Amino acid sequence: MRHAVIMAGGSGTRLWPLSRAGRPKQLLDVVATEGGGAHSLLVEAFDRLRTVVPHDCIWVCTAARYADQVRAALPQLAEDRLILEPQPRDTANAVGLAAALVADLDPDAELAVVSADHVIRPVARFAEALSTAFRALSTRSDALITLGITPTAPATGFGYVQRGAATAAPGVAEAASFREKPDRATAEGYLATGEYLWNSGMFVWRARTVLDALAAHLPESAEGLARIVAAAAGPERNAVLSEVFPTLPKISVDYAVLEPVAAEPGRVLVVDLDVDWLDVGSWPALARTLPVDDAGNAVQGLVVLVDSRGNIVFSDDPDHLVATIGLHDCVVVHTRDVTMVCPVADAERVKGLLEAVATRHPGVFD
Amino acid sequence: MRHAVIMAGGSGTRLWPLSRAGRPKQLLDVVATEGGGAHSLLVEAFDRLRTVVPHDCIWVCTAARYADQVRAALPQLAEDRLILEPQPRDTANAVGLAAALVADLDPDAELAVVSADHVIRPVARFAEALSTAFRALSTRSDALITLGITPTAPATGFGYVQRGAATAAPGVAEAASFREKPDRATAEGYLATGEYLWNSGMFVWRARTVLDALAAHLPESAEGLARIVAAAAGPERNAVLSEVFPTLPKISVDYAVLEPVAAEPGRVLVVDLDVDWLDVGSWPALARTLPVDDAGNAVQGLVVLVDSRGNIVFSDDPDHLVATIGLHDCVVVHTRDVTMVCPVADAERVKGLLEAVATRHPGVFD
Repeated sequence: MRHAVIMAGGSGTRLWPLSRAGRPKQLLDVVATEGGGAHSLLVEAFDRLRTVVPHDCIWVCTAARYADQVRAALPQLAEDRLILEPQPRDTANAVGLAAALVADLDPDAELAVVSADHVIRPVARFAEALSTAFRALSTRSDALITLGITPTAPATGFGYVQRGAATAAPGVAEAASFREKPDRATAEGYLATGEYLWNSGMFVWRARTVLDALAAHLPESAEGLARIVAAAAGPERNAVLSEVFPTLPKISVDYAVLEPVAAEPGRVLVVDLDVDWLDVGSWPALARTLPVDDAGNAVQGLVVLVDSRGNIVFSDDPDHLVATIGLHDCVVVHTRDVTMVCPVADAERVKGLLEAVATRHPGVFD
Repeated sequence: MRHAVIMAGGSGTRLWPLSRAGRPKQLLDVVATEGGGAHSLLVEAFDRLRTVVPHDCIWVCTAARYADQVRAALPQLAEDRLILEPQPRDTANAVGLAAALVADLDPDAELAVVSADHVIRPVARFAEALSTAFRALSTRSDALITLGITPTAPATGFGYVQRGAATAAPGVAEAASFREKPDRATAEGYLATGEYLWNSGMFVWRARTVLDALAAHLPESAEGLARIVAAAAGPERNAVLSEVFPTLPKISVDYAVLEPVAAEPGRVLVVDLDVDWLDVGSWPALARTLPVDDAGNAVQGLVVLVDSRGNIVFSDDPDHLVATIGLHDCVVVHTRDVTMVCPVADAERVKGLLEAVATRHPGVFD
């Protein structure tokens, strides 16, 4: 049976003051929908899986403190499909815990691991690529399949995966190499070859395959996860989870699983995912998903702009007006208790501003 | 007996969104006080009169729609010292109505007419000048005395009064001429002579003198005001006021009274008022009354600024944070239902922004 787990544990501090410690990026209603409204990245991620994976086989892995917000955002999510990390232990353990719980239910389960960090358009093409990856498991049952985004720019903020030998399945190739975030010149060289794709951090594999890989390459995690799963159906579930999970070694799934397995030829495959892959992790990135007026202002909420150009203006209070005159190339974000203003060019420094605020007003606005 | 009337009928649209149609400039708590708080221009104007005029002889003339806010701001103001204009008919009628009501109570009353539009520092010097003017009436009982501000710049936004022949009273001169707002070169010439003062729009005279002047030069107003005062003690007070006042000819006290009387030599005097006379009618002007940090930011309210210079940041919601990073030379004003952002250089255009907002959301944010 096909399963999928949405990894939704991040915080997204660069979207402050909209994102908060207790209200992370993936739960904010920042994705404009066709009806003129907006929904969250989490709901978006859930919806885009539904044509490929039965909805009762979609799991969500998130931080325990976000549990109630996830339940509210996804009322259709069964309680036993909600995986709660007592504290962050990086992606190897989050992915491993999901795989262990899925395999406990269905030892032959095929499992897609997807993130809620990006808007993907068109959604249909995502569904096609995911189906392609699932189908590839029927002939390459022990493969680790990564989804590689067709790059649109020599980005230096992503890892890259190099497409290697083609397989019998259309759109599926062996992964020739993985590269960490390159410098600009290297990234330009990658794009020129046409062989490199952005490493999306989204994977398809059998749950058993990733558990075997963990057992081989990260036995401490594998053993801990086995203890957690053994207790999962009983009254000790939460106690064991809270005791064991925080002791697991902190490491990413790329280092713990992908890299060692990639040493075995043909074990790691890559499926092309030729989509618009919109990061919404910063205000300028989020702005690219918003409607833009004739003067290049990206706007959401109750806003009046006069003689203002190139701004990003976002208000999440439907009764509060944001008004500007003569303002150019600034970000203005209004929430019920914080208003943040900076030049667009300084939007990546919002995290530093948040730190200054948290220092002066600890726990109030962070 | 000395009386004083504070003219407090304006609106102050350039301080939007802090000032509103129903919450005008003179009632906003924008004047920083020594204790670190803030009070309104109206309270400031009342307080600065109290060393010169008995507090139960201080009157306030304002628009009828501001009545409750004035009562709340000045609980010590007796109801029969509150003069409410049913609608604006310019200063000749507002001043005339005040003079008529004061004279009805005390036919020999000396009356100071002061505005609530400026912050005046030091207050003691204002009190001295006002006392000088009152004392001058003892020898020049039919004089119209205007307070002339010692100019600090060749301002083109004010009228000027030229100091003429000295009188026997120190600091009191005859007014040689009045000039409307001059161009820059003319204003520079005025300053070079040392003879010209800014016309403050504040006056001292006997109530009877200004009523006589109105009877002579604006009889239609004088007659209407007499009808209003005749009914003022009876049950028809409000009905007569509402019926008659709006029919009075709309004209300023300068045109209706000062100009014609000035044709009679020695009738109009000027008293020097050598103070800092701070207009707070726009955000940059108001900012000059606020504390300024090392980076030249004028700030009031709950604000965190990181690497930001030359901004004016004003929040009137004590629970709402305004935070900026990398922002320079902007005005950010936060109120409970509107946030306004513009470059300091565009602050004089706020009225235009308000008009755009009022067009799109009539009656909601104006």
